[in-house]
Amino acid sequence: MIIQQVHVTPVAFRDPPLLNASGVHEPWALRTIVEVVTDDGLTGLGETYGDLHHLGRVRECAKALVGLDVHALNTMYARIDTIVGTGRRSGTTKEKSVDRVFSAFEVACLDIRGKAAGVPVSDLLGGKVRDSVPYSAYLFYKWAGHPGEEPDRFGAALDEAGIVAQAKLLIEEYGFASIKLKGGVFPPDVEIAAIRALHEAFPEMPLRLDPNAAWTVETSIRVGRELDGVLQYLEDPTAGIPGMAEVAAAVPMPLATNMCVVASEHFPPATASHAIGVLLLDHHYWGGLTRSSHIAAMCDTFGLAMSMHSNSHLGISLAAMTHLAAATPNLTFACDTHTPWQDGQDVVLPGALRFLDGAVAVPTGPGLGVELDRDALAVMHEQYETCGIRARDDTSYMQRFDPSFSARRPRW
Amino acid sequence: MIIQQVHVTPVAFRDPPLLNASGVHEPWALRTIVEVVTDDGLTGLGETYGDLHHLGRVRECAKALVGLDVHALNTMYARIDTIVGTGRRSGTTKEKSVDRVFSAFEVACLDIRGKAAGVPVSDLLGGKVRDSVPYSAYLFYKWAGHPGEEPDRFGAALDEAGIVAQAKLLIEEYGFASIKLKGGVFPPDVEIAAIRALHEAFPEMPLRLDPNAAWTVETSIRVGRELDGVLQYLEDPTAGIPGMAEVAAAVPMPLATNMCVVASEHFPPATASHAIGVLLLDHHYWGGLTRSSHIAAMCDTFGLAMSMHSNSHLGISLAAMTHLAAATPNLTFACDTHTPWQDGQDVVLPGALRFLDGAVAVPTGPGLGVELDRDALAVMHEQYETCGIRARDDTSYMQRFDPSFSARRPRW
Repeated sequence: MIIQQVHVTPVAFRDPPLLNASGVHEPWALRTIVEVVTDDGLTGLGETYGDLHHLGRVRECAKALVGLDVHALNTMYARIDTIVGTGRRSGTTKEKSVDRVFSAFEVACLDIRGKAAGVPVSDLLGGKVRDSVPYSAYLFYKWAGHPGEEPDRFGAALDEAGIVAQAKLLIEEYGFASIKLKGGVFPPDVEIAAIRALHEAFPEMPLRLDPNAAWTVETSIRVGRELDGVLQYLEDPTAGIPGMAEVAAAVPMPLATNMCVVASEHFPPATASHAIGVLLLDHHYWGGLTRSSHIAAMCDTFGLAMSMHSNSHLGISLAAMTHLAAATPNLTFACDTHTPWQDGQDVVLPGALRFLDGAVAVPTGPGLGVELDRDALAVMHEQYETCGIRARDDTSYMQRFDPSFSARRPRW
Repeated sequence: MIIQQVHVTPVAFRDPPLLNASGVHEPWALRTIVEVVTDDGLTGLGETYGDLHHLGRVRECAKALVGLDVHALNTMYARIDTIVGTGRRSGTTKEKSVDRVFSAFEVACLDIRGKAAGVPVSDLLGGKVRDSVPYSAYLFYKWAGHPGEEPDRFGAALDEAGIVAQAKLLIEEYGFASIKLKGGVFPPDVEIAAIRALHEAFPEMPLRLDPNAAWTVETSIRVGRELDGVLQYLEDPTAGIPGMAEVAAAVPMPLATNMCVVASEHFPPATASHAIGVLLLDHHYWGGLTRSSHIAAMCDTFGLAMSMHSNSHLGISLAAMTHLAAATPNLTFACDTHTPWQDGQDVVLPGALRFLDGAVAVPTGPGLGVELDRDALAVMHEQYETCGIRARDDTSYMQRFDPSFSARRPRW
């Protein structure tokens, strides 16, 4: 099963004006779709970030993989390391860049291997330990619609009533049984009130709050203590492993992260300082599904619980996340997903991925179990060509409407 | 690929009188051979320890795996955990027992999956990063032969001249390019002299000494300092993570272990106290090949170098070790193997595993790439039935000839 061609297609899809500590989601979200084709005619799918710089790296590496067997993952990783491992962008380590590029190809190769063996990708990861993977309702403060456009069907959520209404809508449509609120948008007391309102409206549901490191250590400790008994975990209240460790020692609930432990090199200091209790796994930056299973084993060894992180994504990623979560015994918290915000837009044919009671049944077909919708891919690629966005920039988009906005953190 | 039958066969093969801190190897070494057979007629091989207690557990668990798909490794592990995870023997944690039993079945399932996919097991582990795996010459102090028998062809090695002669023989026959001496047999100064003699005879070769925790912390530090510049690493000089950490802080070379870090729970204290610099991987007790690759990733994350541990073993294990080492980029030190001491005895057909320049070429055939020699298996099983040994006991065997012998440690 030799890689003969790799197609790399950037796509754009509509995204609502979701607020966060960096600003607000632009009208279009970007992703890159990878198709790996072997000499025996099998095709595997991968999905990754859509920013232009990343897209360029994916394209460059795609060429270097032609001629390799789909099993030769160590060699693929080494080749990608040769190409992108030398550059460094601020905030992005060499290791992380390689892992981010490698991931989409690894998923596609597992898709191919599953198809060839007639087994789902979860079987290549040790076999599923659950038939469906629970996801959480991922709430966002949001505007009613993008400025200058009609309100979207989700409407505004700019106070606790709006947040509770949004939770009701998502839970009604998807059946979610746990809730995550993206915070870092309003002053902490406003977000505490929103969490309390959610707790009142859904007293049985585990709740999480994620201000994306918008708070100081002091604020984080205050909020954590005030939400004792209400939050399942508090996600990235403040920046950096030392700050998180300080907060962790002072608040009653575990801290979770997808910000301060995002590469292997962060594990030793994070475990030594007991900075986190929950790791949010994300195969897009942990180097694919196999490497994510190494991370899961490491979490088990060091007593860290697990959930899963999400960026705006499409169905290839949802399928990959679901297979990984299903085959990871110690990934026991409901996973994050942005799926509801894509509101039906997808590059995969409908039917394979369905939410029932907030969970996605693990696809049982060979490989990822999803099939590319070529018409949808063409439409989304055309949207990419015309949308004018080439890299996610929530901050500049926010500043178009609020020139005084600053994404500096900590803000409170 | 549903598991339809599992055959579990204990075997015994001749073993020379190799000395160590526990006593001396008995005339017969025991192993258990596992054959997993699927409904579509594929057979996979595994090899594990032969002690009666372990054999009983393997047999009990074998029955519980019938009906499972060969991919359902997580479910297999959970079932084995249900059966053997509740018992505890002194010195053996629950986790370690499960891993030891699971390993043979996991290897056999990977053998089957490789055969089904037409790829070597190394391909299922990420693909080989080296075409052959280097092993080290594993020297032992030894008697000329078992008492009451003719001397074996290796002859006696009871002083530094004997050790150097043994090294010459093994290197001539196998081409090894590094040397490990099993110590803990004679007072430390005698073993220091032997290492110095090896260094003089083979000045270019990396050398290792393994006294199996026969020394106090003080003795370990003294020996470590005296062998500065001579040893590549010092293996398990003293017992336990705290003692190893004390030694590690005081000697110039890294410490290696297959004694104080043998289960996941040992990782956090060992890394926190910097007790070791080299982990000796062993898939027989780390829960098979996939779980060993998790351990390798953990070593990479925590900056530990790697080699591989060996007990007396046959060709199925050698094949599995070779595939694992080939697919583990950070396993860079030559591996240990007892293969020369088996002196041609094997349960696999000859030809697939050959030493050239001290290294074994990674088998390229499907699965493990080795085939069971049914005649040899029958002979070795008959030997098991008649040899009278049911569990390895180097100490009692030694005491038959030296009633004053004690295996207490530390001895020096």
